[in-house]
Amino acid sequence: MNLESAKIAVVGSGAIGGYYGGKLALAGHDVHFLMRSDLKTVRKNGLVLREGDREMRLAQVQAFGSTEEIGPSDVVLIAIKTTGNAALDQLIPPLLHERTALVTLQNGLGNEEYLAERFGGDRVLGGLCFVCLNRVQHGVVEHYGHGTLPIGDFSKGSTGRPQALAAAFQRSGIDARAVEDLATERWRKLVWNIPFNGLSIAAGGVTVSDVLADEWLRTLARGLMDEVIRAANALGHSIPADFADFQIQRSLSMGPYKPSSLVDYLNAQVVEVESIWGEPLRRARKAGLDPGRLEALYLLLKKLTSRGGS
Amino acid sequence: MNLESAKIAVVGSGAIGGYYGGKLALAGHDVHFLMRSDLKTVRKNGLVLREGDREMRLAQVQAFGSTEEIGPSDVVLIAIKTTGNAALDQLIPPLLHERTALVTLQNGLGNEEYLAERFGGDRVLGGLCFVCLNRVQHGVVEHYGHGTLPIGDFSKGSTGRPQALAAAFQRSGIDARAVEDLATERWRKLVWNIPFNGLSIAAGGVTVSDVLADEWLRTLARGLMDEVIRAANALGHSIPADFADFQIQRSLSMGPYKPSSLVDYLNAQVVEVESIWGEPLRRARKAGLDPGRLEALYLLLKKLTSRGGS
Repeated sequence: MNLESAKIAVVGSGAIGGYYGGKLALAGHDVHFLMRSDLKTVRKNGLVLREGDREMRLAQVQAFGSTEEIGPSDVVLIAIKTTGNAALDQLIPPLLHERTALVTLQNGLGNEEYLAERFGGDRVLGGLCFVCLNRVQHGVVEHYGHGTLPIGDFSKGSTGRPQALAAAFQRSGIDARAVEDLATERWRKLVWNIPFNGLSIAAGGVTVSDVLADEWLRTLARGLMDEVIRAANALGHSIPADFADFQIQRSLSMGPYKPSSLVDYLNAQVVEVESIWGEPLRRARKAGLDPGRLEALYLLLKKLTSRGGS
Repeated sequence: MNLESAKIAVVGSGAIGGYYGGKLALAGHDVHFLMRSDLKTVRKNGLVLREGDREMRLAQVQAFGSTEEIGPSDVVLIAIKTTGNAALDQLIPPLLHERTALVTLQNGLGNEEYLAERFGGDRVLGGLCFVCLNRVQHGVVEHYGHGTLPIGDFSKGSTGRPQALAAAFQRSGIDARAVEDLATERWRKLVWNIPFNGLSIAAGGVTVSDVLADEWLRTLARGLMDEVIRAANALGHSIPADFADFQIQRSLSMGPYKPSSLVDYLNAQVVEVESIWGEPLRRARKAGLDPGRLEALYLLLKKLTSRGGS
């Protein structure tokens, strides 16, 4: 897989798609963006990435309003909301040739499976975005920190694709790396997302540092992490118990960061409740566990987010 | 114990104290009320109880601003917020003679123990108020339904006091009954209070019928009930599993009732988080259980109610 000359499509050009696709394009890759609400602005003003004091502008963006206009591609980065996965049934086929790789950068569990069922598991890879981003306006994405991007094949085997993708991202300034065991990586990410994304909403709109500063929320965050780790281990995805401490420590540097789900909630956007909380809960139950904190949080979030007109 | 000629004191004359004390006084009992915020209004206008279309006015109320003014009494009904229990250390002694009975009508767990430690367990009884009340203004209590009042001794034994008290309440129009096992009754009450009082706050200010109408909240209410029943049974207080169904059924007739904790929360009053959620959680843990839904709800309530300036 030669990424230097690859045609890359980005489906879903919000914060995640704009940032990771934008970095690849800024490094010279041939990146085609499917855009909806941002299309007009980006065609006029380009795509802007802000990182600390730096502002990078991709002046000429290959931005399109349909995947038919983009056509068959070598790599498709998928970054739409998981709540809109049904749209992929129509969006993906025009992008496919025989060896097209589908790389989901989406949150939570179930996305690789969704693509695999429809387009074949061998095509599917997943990437996990450990990153603090917000799209602050049309065509403008701000990067607040982190950015680690583990990439792995959905099916077991050695395709070389995760390594090639990781290398391309690295040359574009992204801290990417190939991983052997994508499923375990997804669960490791959930150890953070489940408590922090969830409690930020359930506690009435609070930031990461608010969760950590409050004795009660920090205790609940830790209890949720322990439940997620136990579920992962029961499902054969080995995560050490002290990974929870590591995640708490890592979060201390984030400050008053608003997790993406809270940003969605505050903007009355759809929150990805099923992929982040619902699917992990169902899998834990299948493994015979009863993660009560996770269930309580999931059910409260279903109620709280159903008001936003989602 | 002769209730006909007994001197009865009511400590804490909010909705509960005003209603149960008021009913006894309306039936001719010698009831002395300790009042704070309501004192002036009640001395002027009397105490008003509204039940459906009926309005009963106790015109001449024996209302006092201190327990010293009331003096030694035969029965003390205690109906202050459990968050203010420390005040009982000063309020109770002036009311005591050798055989004074202390009857806590308060919410949750730990109140009988609090009184027993300070004033002797033999004096202590508990009553459980299965009732829908609100104090709508100074000196005016509205009764929306229910009213069952199980009464029992804290210590095991046959003192006859619960029967005498229940009979006096019955003659006053209260559906009271003596119970052998007060602790089990407390846990039975928690099976309702823990989910409905808690979720009404955690879901953003919703009523009993809102909880029952929402698929997610109803599932969580049921999961919480199951955890409370398991905890009670582990602690030797036998509650059948189908008691949860019975409580759900019973609640269907309540309509858009606001549980007392929600009323407190909306009025920026202190919420009784420790007696209703904290103490049951701690006892469940001592029994070796890990009620995750209850812990999640408790910790969220600690955070959510800490904002009200409590």
